[in-house]
This record gives sequence, C-alpha cells and structure tokens, in this order.
Amino acid sequence: MKMYAYGYDVSADSPMVMMHTEDCIKVGIKEKDRVAITGNKTIIAIVTRSSKLIEPGTILLTDELMGKLEIENGEQVNVIYAHDPDSVKSIRKKMDGERLDRDQIDGIVNDILDNRLSDIEISAWLTALHINGMDIDEIADFTMAIANTGEILKFSREPVFDFHSLGGVPGNKVTPIVVSIVAAAGLMIPKTSSRAISSACGTSDFVETFCDIELDSTKVKSIAEDTGGVFAWGGSMNLAPVDDLVIRIEHPLGINPRAQMMASIMSKKVAMGATHLLIDIPTGSGTKVGTMEQAKVYARDFMDLGERIGMHIECAVTYADQPVGISVGPILEARECISILEGEKHPSSVVEKACECAGIILEMAGIPNGVVRAREILDSGEAHAKFMEIVVAQGGRPDLKSTDLVPGKFTVDIKAPNSGYVHAIHNKEVVAIAKAAGSPVDKGAGLQIFRKKGQRVEQGDVLMTIYAESEAKLKRAKEAAIKDNPFEIEGMLIQRVTDIRPR
Amino acid sequence: MKMYAYGYDVSADSPMVMMHTEDCIKVGIKEKDRVAITGNKTIIAIVTRSSKLIEPGTILLTDELMGKLEIENGEQVNVIYAHDPDSVKSIRKKMDGERLDRDQIDGIVNDILDNRLSDIEISAWLTALHINGMDIDEIADFTMAIANTGEILKFSREPVFDFHSLGGVPGNKVTPIVVSIVAAAGLMIPKTSSRAISSACGTSDFVETFCDIELDSTKVKSIAEDTGGVFAWGGSMNLAPVDDLVIRIEHPLGINPRAQMMASIMSKKVAMGATHLLIDIPTGSGTKVGTMEQAKVYARDFMDLGERIGMHIECAVTYADQPVGISVGPILEARECISILEGEKHPSSVVEKACECAGIILEMAGIPNGVVRAREILDSGEAHAKFMEIVVAQGGRPDLKSTDLVPGKFTVDIKAPNSGYVHAIHNKEVVAIAKAAGSPVDKGAGLQIFRKKGQRVEQGDVLMTIYAESEAKLKRAKEAAIKDNPFEIEGMLIQRVTDIRPR
Repeated sequence: MKMYAYGYDVSADSPMVMMHTEDCIKVGIKEKDRVAITGNKTIIAIVTRSSKLIEPGTILLTDELMGKLEIENGEQVNVIYAHDPDSVKSIRKKMDGERLDRDQIDGIVNDILDNRLSDIEISAWLTALHINGMDIDEIADFTMAIANTGEILKFSREPVFDFHSLGGVPGNKVTPIVVSIVAAAGLMIPKTSSRAISSACGTSDFVETFCDIELDSTKVKSIAEDTGGVFAWGGSMNLAPVDDLVIRIEHPLGINPRAQMMASIMSKKVAMGATHLLIDIPTGSGTKVGTMEQAKVYARDFMDLGERIGMHIECAVTYADQPVGISVGPILEARECISILEGEKHPSSVVEKACECAGIILEMAGIPNGVVRAREILDSGEAHAKFMEIVVAQGGRPDLKSTDLVPGKFTVDIKAPNSGYVHAIHNKEVVAIAKAAGSPVDKGAGLQIFRKKGQRVEQGDVLMTIYAESEAKLKRAKEAAIKDNPFEIEGMLIQRVTDIRPR
Repeated sequence: MKMYAYGYDVSADSPMVMMHTEDCIKVGIKEKDRVAITGNKTIIAIVTRSSKLIEPGTILLTDELMGKLEIENGEQVNVIYAHDPDSVKSIRKKMDGERLDRDQIDGIVNDILDNRLSDIEISAWLTALHINGMDIDEIADFTMAIANTGEILKFSREPVFDFHSLGGVPGNKVTPIVVSIVAAAGLMIPKTSSRAISSACGTSDFVETFCDIELDSTKVKSIAEDTGGVFAWGGSMNLAPVDDLVIRIEHPLGINPRAQMMASIMSKKVAMGATHLLIDIPTGSGTKVGTMEQAKVYARDFMDLGERIGMHIECAVTYADQPVGISVGPILEARECISILEGEKHPSSVVEKACECAGIILEMAGIPNGVVRAREILDSGEAHAKFMEIVVAQGGRPDLKSTDLVPGKFTVDIKAPNSGYVHAIHNKEVVAIAKAAGSPVDKGAGLQIFRKKGQRVEQGDVLMTIYAESEAKLKRAKEAAIKDNPFEIEGMLIQRVTDIRPR
C-alpha cells in the first residue's frame, strides 16, 4: 500500500510507527504487527494503530526511522505486512521450556541490538529466562553472542587478569587497591567498572572524583599496557552494547535472570580480553547472595562457564553482612580508599578484603603466598606508587592526597538511642540513607560509620554521620535514618527467661 | 520537582510521559520508573527519558493524561517519584511460580484496566501465566475479576443457556442454527459472538451480512427475553473490557495462556448471566486442540471451573480435521447457514454438528432425546421461523433468503492435479487462502469447497472455488492456493513395497 510518510520527534525505544486503523484493516495489520516500509531504503517496524491522531493514507514514523528510510516529510513509501523475525520463534521456544542453539541465541541478541524486537517481546524473553533459565552451554553461547555485539580488545601480552565483584554490599571500595597491588606485582589487569545501578555508589562513581574514567578503548589499552592497570568506566567503551538495551527492560520488571546476569558479566570480560578472572561474591543478609550455599552455586556455575569459554576463573566468597569499611558515597569512599593506599594503619575490612582478593590473583599468576605478598606490596608503598602512576595516566593530579577530598558540608550525627552491642548494620537501610542524601550523583553525599558489628556503644555515642550537599537532601536522609535505622543495638542478654512454663 | 507540562498528540497504550534525562537524574528516576504528577488532579505515569527531544524543566504527556490532570499546555505540575503498584509485586510472585490470592488477582486485573501497568509488565504477566499457569481456584478468581471489570447482565428469568466454541476450525457456521433451535424449543439463549481474531471468519463476521450485530446490552436483553435468542457481537457491549487490553499484548507474543483463555471466555459467560453452558471443543490436526486427550483435559478443566463459579457446564468434543461444511468467508458462510435453516437437504456436517450441540443443550434443560428433538425442530421449519424472528428483531429483512447473499464476482476454480482420494483438507491452508482473498473484511471473499475428506476425485475436477472482491486479492489467494494446496489427494495405495531388503 502506498502511503505518505511523516516524522515525529518523540523517541521510541522500539521501532514503532503509527497508521490509521482503516489502513491497517485494508492491509490486514493488527496492533503491534510488523510492516516492511520501503522509501529509498527498506526498514521493518512495528505498528501502533489510531483512528484519531492520524489521517488515512499517511504513516507516522520517528525521525530516526525517517532517517533510515532516507526520505523527507511527505514523501511516499510502500507499506506491506512483514512476518515476525525468527528470533520471535526462538523466544517462544524458551517460553515453552526448550533449549536454544547458538544460532537462535545469536538471532535474539542481534535482533535486540538492531532494534528489531519490541519491548513486549524483550519482556517476554527476560521473563522466560527468569523462569525457565539456560543450561551452562546455552549461557556460554549467550556470553559470546553478547560479547560479539561490541568491540573485543586484544592486548599485546598475556595473561590478562581481571577482577569482578557481584556487588550488593555498600562501601565496597576495594577495586583500585586490588588493581594497584596486582599491577605493582608486574601483572596486567585492565579493569573496567560500572556506575551504580541500584546501589549507593559504584566503583566508577568514586574513582571519577579523583581521575578521568571515560576512556576509549585505545586509551584503556595503552594505559594498561604501560602501567599494568587501569580503572575505566565500561560505559564509555563499546563493550557488549546490547546490555544497555536489556537493562532498560529488566529494571522495571525488577528481575535479573541468572543466565542474563552471568552472560552479561562474562561477555564484558571476554570483550576486555581477560584470560584469568577472580569473581568476588559478597555473601550476607541484605545482599544479592544471601547464604554460603547460594554463593557456592554461583561460584560453581561461573567456573563451569569459564571452562566452556576458555577463561580461567576463580571465586572469592566474601563477608558482606555489613558494609565494607567505614564509608559510603563517592568522595567518602575515595578518601577511605586512598588513605589505605597511603598507608593509614586503621584496622580495616577494606585492607583485609583487598589483600585477600589481590592475593588470589597473584597466586593465579604463579606467585606463591599471594596474600602475604599482596600485603607486602600494600605496606611497602609499591601499591600506592602504582596507583598514582595509573591515576596520573588517567588525568589525575600527581600530588593527589586523600585529604584533598572533602565531603558535603551539610552533616548530621546519628546517635545510639540506647547502650548495648551492635548486633547488625543492615545494608539495605545504609544504601537507602546514602541515596536519600544524594549519592551517587551528589559526589559529597554519603555516610561515615563509626561503629561496626560486635562493638560496644553507650547511649548517645555517634553511630554514623550523614553528609549531603544540600539542606533538603540532608533532611530527607536524616528522616530515612530515623525511620529505618540500619543499626541494631541490643544488650548481650537478648531475652531473660524466668519461667519455663508455657504462658 | 516543579515542571511545565505539555501535551502531545501521539497515543500510547500505556501511560507514558517524557522527561529530560537531567531532570530524571535530579529526581532519581530511571527509564520506565513511575512518577506521581500533580496538576489539578494527580495521576501516576511511567517515564521515558530523552536528552534531545525535550527541554529540561518540562514534561511531555499524552493529551489523554493532560485531560486527566485537568490542565492546559504550559501549566506547572509537581512531579515526584512513585513506587510501583502492588500488582507489580504480584506479577513477580507469579514469575516465581507462586499462587496468587483473590486480592492479588483483582489488583492485577484492575491495574491493567486502569492503565496502571506498562506493556512490559503486562507482557511479563502473560509470559509468567503461559509458563507457570494457574490452578483452577486461581482461574475462578481470575474469571470473576475479569467479569467484574464490566457490565453483568441480569435476565428476568432463568435458566439462561449459552453456547461457546473454542474455534480454530474454518467454516464453523453452526451458532445461529444452534441458537434458533434452542430458542424455538422455548429456552433462552442470549448468545454473543466475536469477530475473527486470527481465523478467516468469526460468527459475528458472517451474521452481520444479514442483520445488525452491534447491539447494546439493553437491546440484547430485550431481544433475548422476547424471542429467546439473539446473535450479538460481544464487542459492542461493555463485557469484560479488560480483555481487549490483554489481547493487544497476547497477539504479538503469539500466546494465549490457558488460564487467560479460560478466564476470558468464562468471564463473558458470567457477564451474560449464563447459568448453563455448552462448550464446543473442535478437535483435530491444524486446530487449537490437536488430540482427544487434550480435548478431554480442556473439558475437565472447564467443568471444574464451572463448579467453582456456580455454572453448569458440559462440553462437546467435535470433529475438526477438515473445515465444517462447504464454505468459508462471511457471505458464503451466511448463505450456507441460512440455506440449512431454509431446509436444504444436502448431507451436511453443519446440520449434524448443529443438531448434536443443540440437542445437548435441550437435554441440559431436561428435554429427553435432545438430538432427535433438535433435528425435528430444524426439519419442521420451527428453527427457521425462530431464526427469522431474531433476524428481524436485529433489524434484518423479513423476506431474507439465502439466495439474496451474493459472494464476490472475481472467482477462480482450483482443480485436482491428479486423480485419487481426498486424504486431507488442511485447515491452516484453507484459512490462509480465505484471508488472502480478503476475508473477513471483504464480505464476499472466501471459498467454496466441492470435495471433502474421503471422496474420490478425477484429475481436473474442481476442488474449490475462490471468491474475491478484487482482481488483486483473487490473484494473491490463487497464489496461496497453488503454493500451499490444502487438498491432499492420493490413490488408495500409498506406497508399493516390492523389496523388503534395506536399500
């Protein structure tokens, strides 16, 4: 059918066009059917019908689609019914609990990337993955399909080490320390990180307070080959770009199917050319992985997957029942991280976790007594020197000091309402307070924790200080802290039993 | 956050608004998060972000949403983050394989009806239903929840009989005959039908060629109470309106989850006040229900469901390996249907099926030897008299004759390429040809079948005639018939075995 095409300036994530209901009936098109539209080029799009907002004989397209057709407003196009792409059949197969082969998985991944699937279809795909899952061979194919949607880096030397934390625990600022130790030991570890998705502060969120993280792949490659390390933001490279299109649908559904999560993580490691990978699995209540049993299942799955795709993977199950270290929020975490590299000697879960993780990586490279060696590299200042080398390569100041980093000027202390012992510090509430204070967008927002689990507190002791960059957000964070206090403080005696008869 | 609101005239099925990415970051809103927008009224909407198409400080809403807010272009509104409705949690529960209680099911159904769920969420819901299903108690709650979204008719007398065919077999024009026989027996059967969704011709598609089917509920009620019968289009009444919103998402996914299908059918019967229902389950290859075993499972489930919601249900498993009768397409089916009521004596699967179904309904009403009685009512002309009474009540001509109905003037005969016996007439190909010819929109389009399964044909015999209203569609249908001939003609000897040794 010949129609006159007009552009409209509303973006749609999926390739939607609008046609008059009468025209749709003529051509035999139902709501959300596909059509092939031919102008100077041919595209496939998905139809929305309206009998009010458009004249019969015309078709409305997004400006992006007008551009792809290479036509101007008012030009004539030809519109015919188009069949669903094969990937829709593959999605149906997964909905029916069948396994998919490599070609089918490639088809789905590429059709998501090229905007050939509607949000409805991607939602069905993710829901089917959430419920029916994938076996490890499918996940391996899925990983490679996702990796192949973007650039794949190739370094001039191997092995290439990498480190990934599944996240979910606030205050986890170990990555720059791990990278600095490993690089100082002479190994190469080109590390990309992400910004916070649902957390209060991702690695990239705090690293960008002291150096540039938006590096292209050429820069990442040269810094890593020169210094051994890098702390880049993955988002500024063209790694596994299909991922962002999927997250857009996962987020409102509140799901992250295991197959999608594993393939998404691993595809980026494949894209970064990693040959050896340590995965940190923070385990504890209020994190993504609640129990040791779950953590072991994840570890086994990742190691199986590594075998399938030819990557050596080890896993570290780490303690995550409370925040790591004593700060949450970009500037506060940067300050704590750098102070540790500078040699500050406070007893610290950050030091311990960083050295354990770096130690495993050293041992993967054949260096004996990895943890001891990692600690030596940190204590001797070698890690700090390496850290500064990388920071400078990433455009940071050569005289950077932790004390340069100043958090928000609006603060409030949260005090203990009673005396006792800290029985718990709940991660979810800590995250909620830091976000209420403005983290991670407001770099100075966050919180500083003065008491950790097991410590004695007296009534009125300061448990934590909240920092914000505005009065209003401080107020909001304070209210969150009062409503849902992350600290559980009780005496050593939980309950006194004086009468054993049932009441 | 205060923003200036502007309307745009593109309809969206879900309540989408657009905000500038920077504003979203300020308010802490991600793509597809919900916001509460307050103008003169408050609404909840789902956000799409853009950093190009909109100025910071403004929010774009559909005109429909502007109307709900009761504001004009350029007025200020207040925008804050809004949590997901509880129904999103219930959808998650079903995704995780849990059962839902009545309140949770009500919540989902009402939130779909009131446009509070996005297409992505409805897609996840339907996918979860497709995979994880519902038990019969959940389906009963689901049925009532859907029925309660619309009008529920109450007739002045009971019992109220109803008849429903699961469909899937072409040429199934029995409904007006069944209704006429049952009403002629003095029973009340207010029957609503649908237009074709994926088939070549629904009951409403052919009934509207000879009388008005778009009746409101007052009219349906008065015709049924006066004459005992009615053949109305369900779509013109406000029955279970949430259904259309669901079909919109089911269709592109190509699924019809069993729970949704059953609840959707039964909710309309509840809304029509039915106390007794016969369900026709056409069973055969190329239909929705392929085997006798599947048919029995459907029958048992519907009868269980009937018990839960207090409706007496019986089921008829009917033969559907080939089209019912000898015609497919609105005018052709109307002509065949009326000629049977007029008393034409040709041996007919339509007559047999209609009398069997009507007979079961008569027996449900306590009339003995139902099938024999139904045939008497048809043969005596009582059914035809009742049919004409209903047709006239629905605005049809009192002198209506089957010969008044003239199909499309463009025709082509499809002839047997070889001699033999008709081994099969494939339903899917028959439907595809009729649709290619223009059915059901072109009322005169369709096909007339001259040979049925088991009959002998000689090379060159006419197997069927295709009718169309335009040369172009006739050509398209002929091409479809040549490419995928629905007729399988073979000799009685399928294969001659002359050598039993393996080759």
